[in-house]
Amino acid sequence: MRATPLLRNAPATASAALRERVRRPAYLSKLAHPKDLAPLFKNDDYIGWSGFTGVGYPKTVPTAMADLAEESKMQENPETKKKFNLFVGASVGPEVEDRWASLDMIARRYPHQVGKEVSKGINAGRIEFADKHLSMFPQDLTYGYYSLKKKHGDPKKPLDWAIVEATAITEDGSIIPGASVGATPEIVQSAEKIIIEVNTHIPCLEGLHDINHSFTPPNRQPYLVTNPMNRIGLTSIPIDPDRVVAIVESRVPDNTGKNAPENDESRAIAAHLINFLSEEVAAGRLPKSLLPLQSGIGNVANSIIGGLADGPFEQVQVWTEVLQDTFIRFFDSGKLQFATATSIRFSPEGFDHFYANWAQYKDRLLLRSQQVANAPEIIRRLGVIAMNTPLEVDIYAHANSTNALGSRMLNGLGGSGDFLRNAKLSIMHTPSARPTKTDPTGISCIVPFASHVDHTEHDLDIIVTEQGLADLRGLSPRERAPVIIEKCAHPDYKDMLHEYYERSLKECLARGAGHEPHMLRNAFKFHTNLMEKGTMKISKWD
Amino acid sequence: MRATPLLRNAPATASAALRERVRRPAYLSKLAHPKDLAPLFKNDDYIGWSGFTGVGYPKTVPTAMADLAEESKMQENPETKKKFNLFVGASVGPEVEDRWASLDMIARRYPHQVGKEVSKGINAGRIEFADKHLSMFPQDLTYGYYSLKKKHGDPKKPLDWAIVEATAITEDGSIIPGASVGATPEIVQSAEKIIIEVNTHIPCLEGLHDINHSFTPPNRQPYLVTNPMNRIGLTSIPIDPDRVVAIVESRVPDNTGKNAPENDESRAIAAHLINFLSEEVAAGRLPKSLLPLQSGIGNVANSIIGGLADGPFEQVQVWTEVLQDTFIRFFDSGKLQFATATSIRFSPEGFDHFYANWAQYKDRLLLRSQQVANAPEIIRRLGVIAMNTPLEVDIYAHANSTNALGSRMLNGLGGSGDFLRNAKLSIMHTPSARPTKTDPTGISCIVPFASHVDHTEHDLDIIVTEQGLADLRGLSPRERAPVIIEKCAHPDYKDMLHEYYERSLKECLARGAGHEPHMLRNAFKFHTNLMEKGTMKISKWD
Repeated sequence: MRATPLLRNAPATASAALRERVRRPAYLSKLAHPKDLAPLFKNDDYIGWSGFTGVGYPKTVPTAMADLAEESKMQENPETKKKFNLFVGASVGPEVEDRWASLDMIARRYPHQVGKEVSKGINAGRIEFADKHLSMFPQDLTYGYYSLKKKHGDPKKPLDWAIVEATAITEDGSIIPGASVGATPEIVQSAEKIIIEVNTHIPCLEGLHDINHSFTPPNRQPYLVTNPMNRIGLTSIPIDPDRVVAIVESRVPDNTGKNAPENDESRAIAAHLINFLSEEVAAGRLPKSLLPLQSGIGNVANSIIGGLADGPFEQVQVWTEVLQDTFIRFFDSGKLQFATATSIRFSPEGFDHFYANWAQYKDRLLLRSQQVANAPEIIRRLGVIAMNTPLEVDIYAHANSTNALGSRMLNGLGGSGDFLRNAKLSIMHTPSARPTKTDPTGISCIVPFASHVDHTEHDLDIIVTEQGLADLRGLSPRERAPVIIEKCAHPDYKDMLHEYYERSLKECLARGAGHEPHMLRNAFKFHTNLMEKGTMKISKWD
Repeated sequence: MRATPLLRNAPATASAALRERVRRPAYLSKLAHPKDLAPLFKNDDYIGWSGFTGVGYPKTVPTAMADLAEESKMQENPETKKKFNLFVGASVGPEVEDRWASLDMIARRYPHQVGKEVSKGINAGRIEFADKHLSMFPQDLTYGYYSLKKKHGDPKKPLDWAIVEATAITEDGSIIPGASVGATPEIVQSAEKIIIEVNTHIPCLEGLHDINHSFTPPNRQPYLVTNPMNRIGLTSIPIDPDRVVAIVESRVPDNTGKNAPENDESRAIAAHLINFLSEEVAAGRLPKSLLPLQSGIGNVANSIIGGLADGPFEQVQVWTEVLQDTFIRFFDSGKLQFATATSIRFSPEGFDHFYANWAQYKDRLLLRSQQVANAPEIIRRLGVIAMNTPLEVDIYAHANSTNALGSRMLNGLGGSGDFLRNAKLSIMHTPSARPTKTDPTGISCIVPFASHVDHTEHDLDIIVTEQGLADLRGLSPRERAPVIIEKCAHPDYKDMLHEYYERSLKECLARGAGHEPHMLRNAFKFHTNLMEKGTMKISKWD
């Protein structure tokens, strides 16, 4: 059965730009205005969006939905209020996601968040949120794990709607994404109704993507990637045309900001790391071109990649989740041979440069779905070098990436677990201390016991701060603690941490429990002191 | 250059049984007595053994080394004392490993332990130990991560010695293991000198094993397993004959005990689980034959597998780490189609039955190396259903598998992380409470905050106790806590846990930090109360 267009009165004519991008003319009969689509969404609907790290997300329909909510004041009345279950590969632009959150339009948001208003909603109890490893979210969605409570609509489709951005539509109706792939393949696969926003502002990025169809067990096949350069899929995302209920034209750019600026601290961390990698090459444990790199977001990541652009390694490859501006410099240095990711999150200037010099980059870059980009299978096979930033790390190398003081969601987990668990070298980098309102070093990033554990001691090889680098490979917990404290802790906290460890060791050995020594009564004293006194600097233990 | 035999005076004649097993006659010139080999090991030597979960380990040479240590009293004198760095895929028989520990012959023991004397040595500070995911240990060994401090011997070989058990040696000098593969391929690959114990008591198990050569990045290839039945390797472990310095004949059986007996509690847990799996099949989220099962060790695992032998599922497959006796019943029921593991840990009676009926099992079973059996790649691809036992789980589903009260090493991590992180269904099962000396329910297995985190909230789908089953899929932390407490906690602790959660929620929401509510000052109060008063039953919070 063929689906009919969702709206009876499609606009009479499509723009020339749109007609050029939509190579399946039948779709043009489904052309709609976002404001006509906005009222069709019902309270408690399950909605998936394209998008990852703030690029490639739908801009016009979600905005029209927010406009409607705002103008109609429907959120102020419990009878008319609508809250949606929202599923997106990772974060999207604040002008839509944060706006939805501030209008209390989000009941549930999986599996990632970084927005200010979204996290406020989560921490205030208005938005249900759970972190999931980004490689697992798409499969769990197709398994139906996020729609166990959904009672309406097609029981075989976890989502009522998919709203996805494309830079073009091919002859067979499949979509060519923008600057991210993320979970879009599985989101369109899981949705009863699909709305495509064709973005005619962004260039058509055909050839940039490598898309796998997502199978579920017992029918899965290996990902035949043995080098980041391997292409194993299609250049567009297949879609069932009968489920496409509307297309709209969008001319809104991705709303990215500047990348985080480097500083002395981030450069010091990068210098320690590049020095360590050089030593590994010298010892024969890494090839001269290193192994494929994964690098997170933030100023330390920028300093590292910037350092590599000036560094001693040639023909370097990258297997990562997201590329930032410094990768442009890395490409242009001639030292980056090939990069693959699931998203390109450049600044507006970075995108201008990238699109203007497209011919120079297009054969050195592939964007894959997050299920592939973050696949444990490939990360382990390639022997990726993974580098990520935690909130805090404890003296035995358990790391907190998400919850400040154990409870307040700050940033989602993202793909850090996918990479750190499977990398050949698992590296976490952080400043040794952060300021509070009253103390410039009021927060120690090295703590006795992580107040939330996202990554365990079994997963980390290297911890590095501006103070130094702790190589934990092959060390027992009792060997790790003194090394982490000595190499990584801020001088303001070294003595306190050494004392915690020494006293814990003495007490635990005395009762034959000295494998990973702790004083549980004091384990969170840094944290409770911070809550009470605005600094982690305690007067004494006990 | 050919290696010469380690000993000048080889025994004049090999037994008929040994000659039948050693199909490369040149090896017989290296025949030695264990007692002649024992003195050759030096203090601080790096030694790898074959063996996994107490089967397939070398018995005679380690015993001779212990005999020498005991008889010569060399451990009593710091000048003559020898401590070794010991690397084995998982645990081995207590008569060798525990005996070494009680003689203080172990300086370092990676990456797993379950022995009583070994854990005593670890907790007393005499043995350095660190848990590592069992899939990662062999690769980290070949990377040189465990020998960064080793200054003697061949710098390209992480181990000085490998001592491995075989049930036969082939014409090309490769070895056919016994009832486990574990890390033996990588241990022989990593060793400067290899000693082979040919066990003529155990039948030759040729054809049971599927052995992959272990490559390091950037030269790794996919594991082309899409069904547990797929054979992707060799039937024996390749060895460089020039590094074989001695062979010895062994007639000592694997020293396994009885499997843990089932009880009402373990049967209740199994019943909840089998009921849940039936519901998943009915909902179309699992095939009628389920998906490949992984099951840990212990009485709950026995009850589950026993329950499946009587259960509604046909043509079931198993992809696991170790098989216990109940799998024999599962095979004999006709409901288990095929099983693969890295070790068979039957009781003595189980082994008798298995060897006597070898023809009936040999085509329904494969043993692989632990790097393959526990590979995230394959576990995720197959959509394994993983089931493991923790020490404790917290109200948000962080689990402690290893350290009692955060510090005392009880059991190693094993492969639980490999499976729980990658399974389609990640299940942890535990009794809701355990006894202390003074209180039959003095330890709650559901706690406010896990005192050690081996598995995070991002990794668990299902928690089940004899009280009930909590399905956490798609739930936020605030939704999880009430469900875990209500379904899984022992009645003696429900009110205390509900109160912890409710008060934490109120406090955290009040300060805009309510994502994963905690009162950090009280987070370990169950545990500190247990240390002080012998029970987790607190009088009040705060």
